[in-house]
Amino acid sequence: MQLGMIGLGRMGGNIVRRLMKNGHTAVVYDKDARAVAALAAEGAVGADTLEDFIAKLDKPRTAWVMLPAGKITEATIEALAKLMQKGDVIIDGGNTFWQDDVRRGATLKEKGLHYLDVGTSGGVWGIERGYCMMIGGDKAVVDRLDPIFKTLAPGIGDIPRTQGREGRDPRVEQGYIHAGPSGAGHFVKMIHNGIEYGLMQAYAEGFDILKNAGIEALPPEHRFEFDIADIAEVWRRGSVIPSWLLDLTSSALAENQTLDNYSGFVEDSGEGRWTVNAAIDEAVPAEVLTAALYARFRSRKDHTFAEKILSAMRAGFGGHKEPPKKPDTKA
Amino acid sequence: MQLGMIGLGRMGGNIVRRLMKNGHTAVVYDKDARAVAALAAEGAVGADTLEDFIAKLDKPRTAWVMLPAGKITEATIEALAKLMQKGDVIIDGGNTFWQDDVRRGATLKEKGLHYLDVGTSGGVWGIERGYCMMIGGDKAVVDRLDPIFKTLAPGIGDIPRTQGREGRDPRVEQGYIHAGPSGAGHFVKMIHNGIEYGLMQAYAEGFDILKNAGIEALPPEHRFEFDIADIAEVWRRGSVIPSWLLDLTSSALAENQTLDNYSGFVEDSGEGRWTVNAAIDEAVPAEVLTAALYARFRSRKDHTFAEKILSAMRAGFGGHKEPPKKPDTKA
Amino acid sequence: MQLGMIGLGRMGGNIVRRLMKNGHTAVVYDKDARAVAALAAEGAVGADTLEDFIAKLDKPRTAWVMLPAGKITEATIEALAKLMQKGDVIIDGGNTFWQDDVRRGATLKEKGLHYLDVGTSGGVWGIERGYCMMIGGDKAVVDRLDPIFKTLAPGIGDIPRTQGREGRDPRVEQGYIHAGPSGAGHFVKMIHNGIEYGLMQAYAEGFDILKNAGIEALPPEHRFEFDIADIAEVWRRGSVIPSWLLDLTSSALAENQTLDNYSGFVEDSGEGRWTVNAAIDEAVPAEVLTAALYARFRSRKDHTFAEKILSAMRAGFGGHKEPPKKPDTKA
Amino acid sequence: MQLGMIGLGRMGGNIVRRLMKNGHTAVVYDKDARAVAALAAEGAVGADTLEDFIAKLDKPRTAWVMLPAGKITEATIEALAKLMQKGDVIIDGGNTFWQDDVRRGATLKEKGLHYLDVGTSGGVWGIERGYCMMIGGDKAVVDRLDPIFKTLAPGIGDIPRTQGREGRDPRVEQGYIHAGPSGAGHFVKMIHNGIEYGLMQAYAEGFDILKNAGIEALPPEHRFEFDIADIAEVWRRGSVIPSWLLDLTSSALAENQTLDNYSGFVEDSGEGRWTVNAAIDEAVPAEVLTAALYARFRSRKDHTFAEKILSAMRAGFGGHKEPPKKPDTKA
Repeated sequence: MQLGMIGLGRMGGNIVRRLMKNGHTAVVYDKDARAVAALAAEGAVGADTLEDFIAKLDKPRTAWVMLPAGKITEATIEALAKLMQKGDVIIDGGNTFWQDDVRRGATLKEKGLHYLDVGTSGGVWGIERGYCMMIGGDKAVVDRLDPIFKTLAPGIGDIPRTQGREGRDPRVEQGYIHAGPSGAGHFVKMIHNGIEYGLMQAYAEGFDILKNAGIEALPPEHRFEFDIADIAEVWRRGSVIPSWLLDLTSSALAENQTLDNYSGFVEDSGEGRWTVNAAIDEAVPAEVLTAALYARFRSRKDHTFAEKILSAMRAGFGGHKEPPKKPDTKA
Repeated sequence: MQLGMIGLGRMGGNIVRRLMKNGHTAVVYDKDARAVAALAAEGAVGADTLEDFIAKLDKPRTAWVMLPAGKITEATIEALAKLMQKGDVIIDGGNTFWQDDVRRGATLKEKGLHYLDVGTSGGVWGIERGYCMMIGGDKAVVDRLDPIFKTLAPGIGDIPRTQGREGRDPRVEQGYIHAGPSGAGHFVKMIHNGIEYGLMQAYAEGFDILKNAGIEALPPEHRFEFDIADIAEVWRRGSVIPSWLLDLTSSALAENQTLDNYSGFVEDSGEGRWTVNAAIDEAVPAEVLTAALYARFRSRKDHTFAEKILSAMRAGFGGHKEPPKKPDTKA
Repeated sequence: MQLGMIGLGRMGGNIVRRLMKNGHTAVVYDKDARAVAALAAEGAVGADTLEDFIAKLDKPRTAWVMLPAGKITEATIEALAKLMQKGDVIIDGGNTFWQDDVRRGATLKEKGLHYLDVGTSGGVWGIERGYCMMIGGDKAVVDRLDPIFKTLAPGIGDIPRTQGREGRDPRVEQGYIHAGPSGAGHFVKMIHNGIEYGLMQAYAEGFDILKNAGIEALPPEHRFEFDIADIAEVWRRGSVIPSWLLDLTSSALAENQTLDNYSGFVEDSGEGRWTVNAAIDEAVPAEVLTAALYARFRSRKDHTFAEKILSAMRAGFGGHKEPPKKPDTKA
Repeated sequence: MQLGMIGLGRMGGNIVRRLMKNGHTAVVYDKDARAVAALAAEGAVGADTLEDFIAKLDKPRTAWVMLPAGKITEATIEALAKLMQKGDVIIDGGNTFWQDDVRRGATLKEKGLHYLDVGTSGGVWGIERGYCMMIGGDKAVVDRLDPIFKTLAPGIGDIPRTQGREGRDPRVEQGYIHAGPSGAGHFVKMIHNGIEYGLMQAYAEGFDILKNAGIEALPPEHRFEFDIADIAEVWRRGSVIPSWLLDLTSSALAENQTLDNYSGFVEDSGEGRWTVNAAIDEAVPAEVLTAALYARFRSRKDHTFAEKILSAMRAGFGGHKEPPKKPDTKA
């Protein structure tokens, strides 16, 4: 099957590669002509402009947009919509805010165009592991493009099957899901990322407590010096908490147990924030997911203004001076 | 190798079974004579009393205590210590508070007895998966009992090896670790459980948001009805958040997507609380692990007194009446 | 000075009364003709319709809308805008979302109308204590209407003056502030309410711990039965934590120490949610304000779906049964 | 009445001064002879040694220990107990852990000595405002020493009386309370401080959101530059959130709106930690009080190890680089 891909970064490029390796064809476009040339050398049909891209696609066209969420994606989809014809499909595979998908799905439908939002997970590992895809949009279109999704998905592989799933949608076991109408794909992907933040923070706090189990503030008989790399590894095997995130942690610690190659300045993408917003809209108390998000906010600050307010109050009621700036734990 | 086991519940009994299946022998004791008889029928040597148990063990004796943490374990270990001789070993495989291990290790050492604290993970699945063990105590004793631990551990199996671990303690890859001196085993197990709470709550909140994505309080165009069982399953395959806990969740949802076979009244064991206490002693901000613990506290209450205080204040300043008791979301 | 008031509920009616008591005049309108008649009997000019209301106001007109935030307020302001003339002023004194104010301020300015958003605090006590007002909009209009705001504000009274405020805006000490352009008033009021949630929850948790200090789960020598009403009262006097909210709590507890006249089902208004949204937009970690909001969400549920997920996982890995449904603490 | 005071720091010294100003007498002792001399110059009887201190006190003696909680206080009370006689009273007015009081109360009772634990609030302002005191111990002793407590307490002053307190203990309105047996005084003081942390953090977060309302990450039409000093002041007057802590905040901001005279490195005393421990022992979810404590932990670190774990995971699954170390908000 033929797919058009706009945006040939790590994700877009590897998606094309995985498709071509499995017998599909691709028309590719990127602002960076070198990225186009590179994929063309691997067998894709390169396009110089968006118009050229459209012209080179078979009808009905399928254009997968894999760009940073926000203005660039929005502008590209608007431009595509002007060039495309009834029956063509636009896929947004990036990390778009699901309410934008709802809006776009409705707007494009008025023009006779189809729109799919595909939350795509897999990161740098996707090209070999396959991509877990969460898809929103019309059933007929999702079904039509099934060969693409099936190829990109990881497939069952050696992950054990879940009992009791007889009679359920078999695509799910392959690693992709038609989650619902426009927006549903990115909504599910958003929650995936929100959970990811929570899981990461849970491990991170646990290792932090282990790391600081030997500090001088503790009574000598209650201090421990743990081999954190070994602990991460042992938990991978027979404990209750193995996970892919723990695998990655064990790898990182095996490489450098101190992690002093990292500063601990942690970015957050939109999904964590949107997850909290969704929780609030639904009046669902999402304590852990929110705490995980806030930990990232905090990681990017030297001090908050809130902390200065605390210091000012303490000086006010107790004449308390601030302690010397000496971290009381290890980082 | 011979092991004595006191406490033949699900954990203790299965540990004995896994050992015997792999060529070890066992002397077993339990207050419930039927439990002793059952294991004796499977090949263990049954003991009628603690004295009988001691008498039937080869010297130096190894007695693994697998009882509920707290008074029963404490009393049993005290009784054992009186009956045992220099060089004998007591293992506490339960969920004991690590500071009790530190104390016991020192007290028993004065008597010439050895003490190991073994945090044992694996639950009902341990007999087939093997047990992840986190061991505290003297190196010589841990080394001497290696055949036991090696047999109980899951082994490498088909879990991929972590790169960069060359030259590190090979036992870790088998699923057991000598974590440090007395207390270290249960400390690491405590953190394991603390992380477990956090991971569970992260998934739980994510699914809660998905579950409530269709409530009437939301604008109609922003409502979704998700198939939560399918979403749990798809995330097992190629996403960033696969884990054993997700496997279990997917199974439970495949069986009954509404989970109305559960009330949501969630117990907490001591480890979650001790984890938070340890974090506080170390001045480590463990937001997520604490929030996960509190969510369990909250799950066991109809209403907190705190909430009534809020209602009273609201009545006081605004004349606000309490809303009708109608949950605004799905559970 | 003359003020038009639309919405004669507790807040709107009392604002009119406080103004009239201090020499101002009022034209009043409400869908409920009885509310209009009641205030007319106290000296206000009653209006039968919005058109009548507009006709009875001197030019340039000032219409204060005091209705529930959302659709009713929006529709009323739109209707007013059609009837009003260049130079007239619309005040939204309700709990409107500040981004709606930003939009409205811009839209109305195009029509030559002025718009003020006034966050109004004071609740049922405002008629005697006065209202703390946080005002957004054009300086000239705020200055022109100063006689209204000055009368509604509490004034300095016997609250001690803060040192170091010489040369600062003297209105602030009277209890009202021109906080900035359109939206600024409701933004500041939103943060006020967000803080209010946090303060309330802090007291509530403290009293909850005191209330449960005698539960049987604690060792007998560590149990206390506290007189919570007395503790609330003593903290009003010389401690670090006196506040108006504590005054209200002490009153409520003096009346009924068990608070069993409340169920603990706690509503949240939009401001707490918007505060968290604002924190997230700014990447400010607002742990306490968010936890306070979530405590309210939780208060309105019997059980969350998240809790059932936890139960399902626990059954999955450990065969744990749910404990009997017996709250472990007092509420 | 005569009181012996050990520890003549800011608190101990001022307590003596307030007593002497109101007709009581004092015997004073401190390791620092200059502190003794200073108070002797103001009318107190100075003691050179603990023995001298005991000798100069009338029987039955009353010795108030006002030292940093922990080892110094413990050692001093042990030394006092050896020198004192049946019927004498030891008061611990510091910030002692309440479980130590329970233990001491029992131990001293065996020797025929009385023990009172007095949680004392008031800080540097106590000498003029009076001290709010929360007292644990035997009723007869508390009653006998009432003249002391009555003088130290703030009295009713101009703080309005709470309705419905007729028939209740009148001491409470004076600002002191006999909270229960040994430990009860410090338990109540501990909760007071726990609440204090929560209140402080609630204000702090609110001001942090206001402070950052103009950052560039926000859409231009949604940015505000607030005068935070004025906002703190206006909330003191007629809003729902006035408090003594807000008074102090308003003062600090009037002096220096940027608070750049503070680094935001915030100490925590034991009470906040013990409050969380108490909540956990009681299974009371104290989200806000805990979050407030953790905010202080976090304020004293450059980066946590947890954050480095997050960075390592993100590098592992997504190849994400850490963002440049540029705080995204104002502090």
